Amino acid sequence: MKSEIIAVGSEMLTPFRQDTNSLYLTEKLNEIGVIVAFKTIVGDRRKDLVNAIRAALGRTDVIVLMGGLGPTEDDLTREAVAEALSLTLRRDAAQVAALYARAATMRITISDNNLKQADVLEGAAILPNPNGSAPGQWLDITFAGYRKLILLVPGPPSECRPLFDEACLPRLRAVLPPRYIAKRTLRAAMIPESQADKFLAPIYTPYTDVETTILAHAGDIQITLLCSKPSLPAAQHRVDELAGRMEEALEDWLYSSDGESLEQIVIFFLGLRQSTLAVAESCTGGMIAQRITSVPGSSRSFLGGAVVYSDALKTAFANVPPELIARHGAVSAEVAQALAEGIRLRACATLGLGVTGIAGPAGATESKPVGLVYIALSDAQKNESIERTFRGDRDRIRQWTTQQALDLIRRRLM
Amino acid sequence: MKSEIIAVGSEMLTPFRQDTNSLYLTEKLNEIGVIVAFKTIVGDRRKDLVNAIRAALGRTDVIVLMGGLGPTEDDLTREAVAEALSLTLRRDAAQVAALYARAATMRITISDNNLKQADVLEGAAILPNPNGSAPGQWLDITFAGYRKLILLVPGPPSECRPLFDEACLPRLRAVLPPRYIAKRTLRAAMIPESQADKFLAPIYTPYTDVETTILAHAGDIQITLLCSKPSLPAAQHRVDELAGRMEEALEDWLYSSDGESLEQIVIFFLGLRQSTLAVAESCTGGMIAQRITSVPGSSRSFLGGAVVYSDALKTAFANVPPELIARHGAVSAEVAQALAEGIRLRACATLGLGVTGIAGPAGATESKPVGLVYIALSDAQKNESIERTFRGDRDRIRQWTTQQALDLIRRRLM
Repeated sequence: MKSEIIAVGSEMLTPFRQDTNSLYLTEKLNEIGVIVAFKTIVGDRRKDLVNAIRAALGRTDVIVLMGGLGPTEDDLTREAVAEALSLTLRRDAAQVAALYARAATMRITISDNNLKQADVLEGAAILPNPNGSAPGQWLDITFAGYRKLILLVPGPPSECRPLFDEACLPRLRAVLPPRYIAKRTLRAAMIPESQADKFLAPIYTPYTDVETTILAHAGDIQITLLCSKPSLPAAQHRVDELAGRMEEALEDWLYSSDGESLEQIVIFFLGLRQSTLAVAESCTGGMIAQRITSVPGSSRSFLGGAVVYSDALKTAFANVPPELIARHGAVSAEVAQALAEGIRLRACATLGLGVTGIAGPAGATESKPVGLVYIALSDAQKNESIERTFRGDRDRIRQWTTQQALDLIRRRLM
Repeated sequence: MKSEIIAVGSEMLTPFRQDTNSLYLTEKLNEIGVIVAFKTIVGDRRKDLVNAIRAALGRTDVIVLMGGLGPTEDDLTREAVAEALSLTLRRDAAQVAALYARAATMRITISDNNLKQADVLEGAAILPNPNGSAPGQWLDITFAGYRKLILLVPGPPSECRPLFDEACLPRLRAVLPPRYIAKRTLRAAMIPESQADKFLAPIYTPYTDVETTILAHAGDIQITLLCSKPSLPAAQHRVDELAGRMEEALEDWLYSSDGESLEQIVIFFLGLRQSTLAVAESCTGGMIAQRITSVPGSSRSFLGGAVVYSDALKTAFANVPPELIARHGAVSAEVAQALAEGIRLRACATLGLGVTGIAGPAGATESKPVGLVYIALSDAQKNESIERTFRGDRDRIRQWTTQQALDLIRRRLM
């Protein structure tokens, strides 16, 4: 079955914004055997939108329209689908009530144009949107003698993705013939991409029935294996066999055999070892704490931390002696170790992490270039630090440093 | 003049790869007054490709086809354009010679299907590709009574971008009437999207010559104004006039008149007021510090902060009395204010920010739902807190809270 994803929004026709939801939807559609044959990006002009919908109707069976369901005058997806298919729109009383109820909880007033979010296409089922005001819609119609499924989903990722998973996928599954896809995602940290491929290519190349994709981002390698077979055990067998060989080759670079993030793995091992963690961050400015606390339940093992941008706070929050900073400089192995030790003791944690470095663009000296970082990890037995020099802009240096720090914790706990 | 960019390649219809060239081409096309009305991504299937080209011919005047010009069987762009327009392909002798010459320099042998890269569309001009083997092509034709420009450019960014700059842009400029584009981006915080549009629609709707795009994300509204005119001052005048009216309507929701981020604005005002800031974050777990420290030079005004996940750290780092936590609970206005005051004094900062809340999914009680947050801001004169309830998942609640906290700082400083 062929599908087309239509992303609606003039902002995605500027040099500044890209549709990213479609990658997620593609993955989900592929998993149930639906091929994405076209992706179209169209602006908030009604005429163009109608044109895009008509083109899609002529060439695909499943059409997912993302975006243009909000309350503004620019939100025209409902109207355009109605025009393209000569359907009427009716204002749904229950949806109007839901909009008022939602506005009341959020203590906002509701304007007239807000109510257009309650307009429903003739014959469409309403798909509830727990994370936003505009519901999705599901249309199963016959067009020019062919069955067409037309899905309207909201544009914001936080609304689009759960709504697609919870409301669209079960409906699509019920309509489509069953198909079995096995999937595994392996993840490895801090291995150069070219090195990973050099190791892995001879292993995965003979597996012509498994689709292997390797993605690299700031010290993180993600390997996705996909196999489609007439039975799930057959597909799973091939994927697991290949995954096993790759895991062996990746040795301790591998941190996840099933797609978990590095921060999830760190939280998992902290729980397993009944350890607690506190962090003192300088150049990463809260990014490490932020990644760790993005994991639900992290509060059981993560006590907290300090963002010690100023030297005074390095002393106040992590007991770093001012003389040490004066002697070695704030960006030094000694200060990283003092931060790790200090934060561990101050927070009464099993493990303390200290990070200091030069994220740039300013702050470099002759002996200390932009990208130089020191990361230290302290526990009751030892306090070790590593030195790294990362390349790229401020954001990239901070991302690499964060990844390296989390990997250091993982290796200590393993 | 309306254009469509068609990216050709099955890999861009997987969950893993995205077309990025089109952002570059869009910027270049906009600069010469060509609006991108559609972007289409299509795989290496000839039938689909012909379909995409025909759809584009029916709705736009300039069509840029990227990719599918290589030597493999999957490279079908030339053939598809020929089919869609009923043109013949001829093998160009000079191009065949160039292919052999290139192969000789690179010491590779040339296969038969390699020679298809020398096939040229009837009536097309050849666009030299100094960085690859397949040349681009430029077709200026009349189709169904309308003039159409069809550009074939290679897919790899290292070939596509220079070829587009050096061979396509000068030809387009020579053909198109001179156009200049003026642009402005306004940003506003914590205003509901529907409310912004209610204010703004009556203002921007009469400006039919200015393209207005409104984007909303977790408490951030971004309004982009684009205007294309035969002279730059004329375009700039219209954009600035409309921007001025919008700024007035947005009142103090507006935080940026030229696209700066909220964290940049906060850092700017801290510098202007010679103020310093320290933060104590519970539920946001470092996100506020991370956003602030993403701004280069933030270390001049941002002293640091504490991520106080555990109650013990709320006391250790921000002097929150344990009795206060016991009496009101960690998620309370009282604790937020104590965090703000405590971190301000501990860090010797002008301003202290305290944040506590329930990011979920666990942690809610009967009286305190997921999404409930308290944000307090303390300076020498006052210590005020606000209560909000945000919706969505953990990530979204943390993003909204971060945005609200930064906006609170901005308003205090303005």
